[in-house]
Amino acid sequence: GFPGTPGLKGDQGESALLYRSAFSVGLTDRTPMPNVPIKFSKIFYNGQRHYDDSTGKFRCSIPGVYYFTYHLTVYLKDVKVSLYKSDKTIMFTFDQFQENNVDQASGSIVLHLETGEEVWLQVYGEEAYAGIYADNINDSTFSGFLLYPDMKTVNGDR
Amino acid sequence: GFPGTPGLKGDQGESALLYRSAFSVGLTDRTPMPNVPIKFSKIFYNGQRHYDDSTGKFRCSIPGVYYFTYHLTVYLKDVKVSLYKSDKTIMFTFDQFQENNVDQASGSIVLHLETGEEVWLQVYGEEAYAGIYADNINDSTFSGFLLYPDMKTVNGDR
Amino acid sequence: GFPGTPGLKGDQGESALLYRSAFSVGLTDRTPMPNVPIKFSKIFYNGQRHYDDSTGKFRCSIPGVYYFTYHLTVYLKDVKVSLYKSDKTIMFTFDQFQENNVDQASGSIVLHLETGEEVWLQVYGEEAYAGIYADNINDSTFSGFLLYPDMKTVNGDR
Ligand SMILES: [Ca+2]
Ligand SMILES: [Ca+2]
Ligand SMILES: [Ca+2]
Repeated sequence: GFPGTPGLKGDQGESALLYRSAFSVGLTDRTPMPNVPIKFSKIFYNGQRHYDDSTGKFRCSIPGVYYFTYHLTVYLKDVKVSLYKSDKTIMFTFDQFQENNVDQASGSIVLHLETGEEVWLQVYGEEAYAGIYADNINDSTFSGFLLYPDMKTVNGDR
Repeated sequence: GFPGTPGLKGDQGESALLYRSAFSVGLTDRTPMPNVPIKFSKIFYNGQRHYDDSTGKFRCSIPGVYYFTYHLTVYLKDVKVSLYKSDKTIMFTFDQFQENNVDQASGSIVLHLETGEEVWLQVYGEEAYAGIYADNINDSTFSGFLLYPDMKTVNGDR
Repeated sequence: GFPGTPGLKGDQGESALLYRSAFSVGLTDRTPMPNVPIKFSKIFYNGQRHYDDSTGKFRCSIPGVYYFTYHLTVYLKDVKVSLYKSDKTIMFTFDQFQENNVDQASGSIVLHLETGEEVWLQVYGEEAYAGIYADNINDSTFSGFLLYPDMKTVNGDR
């Protein structure tokens, strides 16, 4: 007999376009409390609402590799912050203030997150380290975005 | 009869590979003018030419979510800059200079842009805030890149 | 006889998800040597092992457009670093230290890399510029990630 008909065309390639998670927020409250998450309440972008401005925490909905960064205005006091990943300190940034010398302190990191893991910034230690400042023409910001979602298995049963 | 030939390989995934926009530029002129866009004319990367070094502005060609960042050397004067999105100030960075204490000030943000929207940096206010410095072994930079293009409809008629 | 059975389904299309390269590392040794690559040995992320902590260098395995960034704690001495791309200085960051005024200096850049090209940070010049500090609650970091892999030809013969 004749050969069978050709097989079906393969599936469309997996689209990275389906996976997106990004936020970018700024401080409005000029004296963050030490030892609790800093609440950034000025929203520059929060398209997927993975950042929760009621808690100050980013919560992972898409497991994968993320980038986080922050830029803090140092005024009146020294600044020491830690970036937390689900109750564990991961990275620290310290900048001392001197009179008439407002400074900028920044940090960034690439981290892998599982679904449900949270990332936030917190003043580390005493109130003496809480000199993070913002007003309507001075910003202190926190941003993050998904770089690469975790790969699914490629054997068809994903 | 014999089985048919295998099917054709699937279409390329709605490939993020097709959507790309990035630039990275540095200052060569050491005293930027206040109240006009800062022209960064040293080009580290500008593959799609979405940054225009004749104006100092990035112009969005692919609607979507972008990341922008800048790192400024603070020397001789204080620095106050604003990041503009099409004639509107979006974010401010302020760093004071003290003698013998060159500083670095940086900022970053995630923003959604529509086609034609422009993003640039500008000294905000007086010339007294224009202390951004660069020479052949000191850089002040401005970079940005597309994170996620806007989704097209997935029903075939995109 | 009857026609044969249909052929096998085609392969899945190309996915951007296959291209990933990211690292994020911190300093543990508090006094980096000048004029050799800074070895960051605290690993925050190095999923593809493209950063080599025995040399301090990132080595490109996927040709394309990359983003690199660093955040350095300035303590006891001034800091001057250069970002190198395969033995060539590309960008410089300078921040002076003053007593009781720990600072933060940062830089970032977008660069195109070919396979085998390496990127690293190095104190530029004298030991007097090696004031990069880190301890268990103070970080100095270096991170990078692939933004866009180089496009393959789309005509099937890539
Ligand atoms: Ca300062
Ligand atoms: Ca300084
Ligand atoms: Ca300082």
